[in-house]
Amino acid sequence: MQRWVECVPNFSEGRRQEVLEAIAGAMREVAGTHLLHMTADPDHNRAVFTIAGEKEPVMEAVLRACRVAVCEIDLRRHQGVHPRIGAVDVIPFVPGPGVRVDECVRLAEETGKRLWEELQLPVYLYGLAARTPARRRLATIRRGGFEALRAEIGQPERHPDIGEARLHPSAGATAVGVRRPLVAFNVILGTDRLEVAQEIARRVRETGGGLVGVQALGLPLASRGRVQVSLNLLDPVRTPPYRAVELIRTEAARYGVAVVESELVGLVPLRAVLASAAYYLGLEKLEPEQILEWNIAHVLGEGSTQLQWRWPDGTGNAGR
Amino acid sequence: MQRWVECVPNFSEGRRQEVLEAIAGAMREVAGTHLLHMTADPDHNRAVFTIAGEKEPVMEAVLRACRVAVCEIDLRRHQGVHPRIGAVDVIPFVPGPGVRVDECVRLAEETGKRLWEELQLPVYLYGLAARTPARRRLATIRRGGFEALRAEIGQPERHPDIGEARLHPSAGATAVGVRRPLVAFNVILGTDRLEVAQEIARRVRETGGGLVGVQALGLPLASRGRVQVSLNLLDPVRTPPYRAVELIRTEAARYGVAVVESELVGLVPLRAVLASAAYYLGLEKLEPEQILEWNIAHVLGEGSTQLQWRWPDGTGNAGR
Repeated sequence: MQRWVECVPNFSEGRRQEVLEAIAGAMREVAGTHLLHMTADPDHNRAVFTIAGEKEPVMEAVLRACRVAVCEIDLRRHQGVHPRIGAVDVIPFVPGPGVRVDECVRLAEETGKRLWEELQLPVYLYGLAARTPARRRLATIRRGGFEALRAEIGQPERHPDIGEARLHPSAGATAVGVRRPLVAFNVILGTDRLEVAQEIARRVRETGGGLVGVQALGLPLASRGRVQVSLNLLDPVRTPPYRAVELIRTEAARYGVAVVESELVGLVPLRAVLASAAYYLGLEKLEPEQILEWNIAHVLGEGSTQLQWRWPDGTGNAGR
Repeated sequence: MQRWVECVPNFSEGRRQEVLEAIAGAMREVAGTHLLHMTADPDHNRAVFTIAGEKEPVMEAVLRACRVAVCEIDLRRHQGVHPRIGAVDVIPFVPGPGVRVDECVRLAEETGKRLWEELQLPVYLYGLAARTPARRRLATIRRGGFEALRAEIGQPERHPDIGEARLHPSAGATAVGVRRPLVAFNVILGTDRLEVAQEIARRVRETGGGLVGVQALGLPLASRGRVQVSLNLLDPVRTPPYRAVELIRTEAARYGVAVVESELVGLVPLRAVLASAAYYLGLEKLEPEQILEWNIAHVLGEGSTQLQWRWPDGTGNAGR
């Protein structure tokens, strides 16, 4: 059985195609890794890559991509609506088949150490790699973005976990963590009123009394003359996309605003999609075993270990 | 690369668990086949099995199951709301990876020949195996069910394609065919008025001016005090389940009747589910490549030929 990790580095560049290609090219150089997907957004000015493979090659590929990003991206001149603290804003590792969380935590720490030593990026460890409960949430680390962190990094509670308390002058800092598969998901509203998106986001997210495991921000989309609710569903099998979309629709109705469309960022676990389809079609449930191709792949045996993608606790894809 | 066919035999038994187990047991005896799924419905008094494997073993397994069904099921005493002409009502073969339609047609003919010779079941060839355009549609062959066919089998236009023009006294006749993957799908309405389900079915199906490739019947569900629209979506990627469900909802609103729930019969192609999830979530599209596990399985190579499940014309899963 192959032992895989997934890594989903986020870079603060979503406009210059040549930079995105250079970042992708750097990752593709490393044998034993597979660049699975890329999403870039010009309003966010941000790109999300998904790469998978064995632990060491994936780390190596991501570090090479970071080297490109540090050269090419200058946070002092960066404009984008998504919160960010660095050119390489966040590097989450996701344990795949046969890989334990603690192995990924060690991989995150090794990656952080090399980011500091080789690129002078101070590193914050978050999620399952956090050293203190306060650092578990990425939003806490990223509060106020590059500009606030530059002013506050000398304060003890904002000191990085790896490296010294000074930002890289142009590339800022990086958050490196371990997490389960999540769904990153934007819901676009039929209005240009930012306060509507912000108010809806506040009510839908866990910290505002909304859905458990849901993070949400209201953001403007200047290029489209609209606003969006940008969401992370941290446990997308327990809280599938449909529940967030319908709750946003409910809150948006207060303003007479419609949900116009939505878009996925990166890849989505199958069970999160099936749960959403089941809800709308009126099926009591819809399991991977009811999907023709999945079922065939399972009985074939080939690829089935990969398709299972179970967590070490044996509770399924996203920690159900 | 392995060469697989799928076969989805429908038996006119959905109540007696011991008979269903005997049928399943007969199929499991044959090495090289995989019994993937079974759905039984007491109101339909019908069960749908999904079996896959190489051509010859699948045919052998299905024939053994037919032998059990012919012994155990007596159409003269059979009660069930689903149309049927035989104990083994219909045997569709579906070409899988590496198998051509014409190979499946030969397999259907060979199966039909053995059903007649070994079990004295007259056989109608339908779908892509039909010898005349009139026999393409299963509904034409099955018109009036066992009782009508018993009275009419002597008429030239109802003569079987294989065997003599006389029904098996207790087990009737069998339709054997070749088709693409379809979605069989029941939508249950919040009423017990059969005429409402029948009227909605008539408007939703292709022959009534409804959706292309959709077959629909209104059926009573005595065990639940409701009625249902029972659907086949013959090209479920082009006409995904969401479109049928929403059209049924629209027609049901004329009667003040709600869609209560729905249920899948057998397995469903992934792309049909993804198209439905995309519609409701507001995604412009949702492709298998955006599904984490699918993407991983693809780049791994293992299992990818199975997951592709493409048609010989190279246009994708369900003939898009």
